[in-house]
Amino acid sequence: MRICRYDDNRLGVVKDDRVFDVTEALDAIPAPAGYPLPTHDLLIANLDKVRARIEAVLPNASSKAVNEVKFLSPIANPGKLVAAPVNYLKHLQEARSDEAIHHSNQVLEIQKIGLFLKATSSLIGAGEPVKVRHHDRRNDHEIELAIIIGKPGTNIKKENAWDHIAAYSIGLDMTVRGPEERSLRKSVDTYSVLGPWMVTADEMGDATQLGFHLTVNDEDRQKANTKDLVLDIPELIEYASAFYTLHPGDVIYTGTPEGVGPVKPGDTIMAEFEKIGRMYVAVESA
Amino acid sequence: MRICRYDDNRLGVVKDDRVFDVTEALDAIPAPAGYPLPTHDLLIANLDKVRARIEAVLPNASSKAVNEVKFLSPIANPGKLVAAPVNYLKHLQEARSDEAIHHSNQVLEIQKIGLFLKATSSLIGAGEPVKVRHHDRRNDHEIELAIIIGKPGTNIKKENAWDHIAAYSIGLDMTVRGPEERSLRKSVDTYSVLGPWMVTADEMGDATQLGFHLTVNDEDRQKANTKDLVLDIPELIEYASAFYTLHPGDVIYTGTPEGVGPVKPGDTIMAEFEKIGRMYVAVESA
Repeated sequence: MRICRYDDNRLGVVKDDRVFDVTEALDAIPAPAGYPLPTHDLLIANLDKVRARIEAVLPNASSKAVNEVKFLSPIANPGKLVAAPVNYLKHLQEARSDEAIHHSNQVLEIQKIGLFLKATSSLIGAGEPVKVRHHDRRNDHEIELAIIIGKPGTNIKKENAWDHIAAYSIGLDMTVRGPEERSLRKSVDTYSVLGPWMVTADEMGDATQLGFHLTVNDEDRQKANTKDLVLDIPELIEYASAFYTLHPGDVIYTGTPEGVGPVKPGDTIMAEFEKIGRMYVAVESA
Repeated sequence: MRICRYDDNRLGVVKDDRVFDVTEALDAIPAPAGYPLPTHDLLIANLDKVRARIEAVLPNASSKAVNEVKFLSPIANPGKLVAAPVNYLKHLQEARSDEAIHHSNQVLEIQKIGLFLKATSSLIGAGEPVKVRHHDRRNDHEIELAIIIGKPGTNIKKENAWDHIAAYSIGLDMTVRGPEERSLRKSVDTYSVLGPWMVTADEMGDATQLGFHLTVNDEDRQKANTKDLVLDIPELIEYASAFYTLHPGDVIYTGTPEGVGPVKPGDTIMAEFEKIGRMYVAVESA
């Protein structure tokens, strides 16, 4: 199933380039009892129940064309956005050879650097613009496969990792270049794009050989395949969960391949993944 | 006012070593309309209303001794935990001279490194134990003044920064040493302690000259004063908000002074701040 959030927080199912309004199915999510609120995403934590309700309301759902809706992030309340640095070898080589990327910082392998965090306040959907700050710096696009955690877990073994994935989406890990820690430069408001929708794990099937590419104003920039991940999907989950518990709705941006490059206000980013779909993201000035 | 959360999510006011149960005042927080939930902390976002209700219920509130309650994090739903690395000069010197701290990584000044994030899933209160993972590594205590953001803002000028602070608390930025990015090593479950309560900005008054110290099993480890911060409180808020919007309940850990050192299961950390108070935090094994 392809599930999206769109317009004024509506819930949708995407089929044949149309978005079916299944907002009613959000009734399957129990209302929180009051403060404090749950710290994980309730749509994902209740996904089985919501899907059952979706099946019930879908036959009578109204629909709009995909290009007529404003896509929001398919996950509204992630507890954390985890991201993998230099997780394609050719991007590691590119980062090491280009001073405009490494800024005199050491660029170590992912096994040494580990993972980093992006602020959840930076999260937007495909229908919202990336708003560039720090115009004196390079602001780069980075396309990645994004994994959405379903079943919570800690110290997850890679053999069991697939069971913890609820869905997949396309991620843009937008980045201000500079000497600062990644968790700062990659957490600017709007610098974490997730979209256009999520594809549930059962519909995705094999995610280990997904071709994907990114263009800026129709110019080819990044083109790669998830088969070239350095730490693959189960290894990323094992690695992350050796440090912290992964909760329903946590997102893992799996890392970007070579071809990263700058964007500026007025640009349009196109990001496309096999078996997920395509999104167009506008770039504006903050 | 000194406000705490304790036991089974009760709201308390601390006076003269007693905790008064003002849980009723949480009624002042409007119930969320359903999914998606707000992405900031509702207690802080509604603090004025909650305080007015607290004043009303306090005269009839029952109480317990401070040492009889289990303190939870005073903030339950922070959108992000921001933290400042090497923000006291003597800690920078210590980090650069000790391989067990720097792990062959460059240790740059905070103005170059910027700030980092800690996972909100790592947050606990003073009454919950720090649970050590990665026993083969050094797991260090770092005591810091923690600022709790009240009024949201972006691109906040330092002249206006004080207006954005709701309260203060004691932070422990627990840290696994190693080569990885700070946002990973400092995000282990239980590695962000906040407590024992928060002191509202009006009660705190001047926070620029607070003495503080930390002991482990009564052995002196860290002792410093917030007057020695490299980036001071307004500068930290200006710096952070140049990258991202600060939301109600966001916490800024302002950085730790010299004297960081290892803890192990069985230890007790005592952390004390002038004008805030004292907390004892147990260390266990995960």
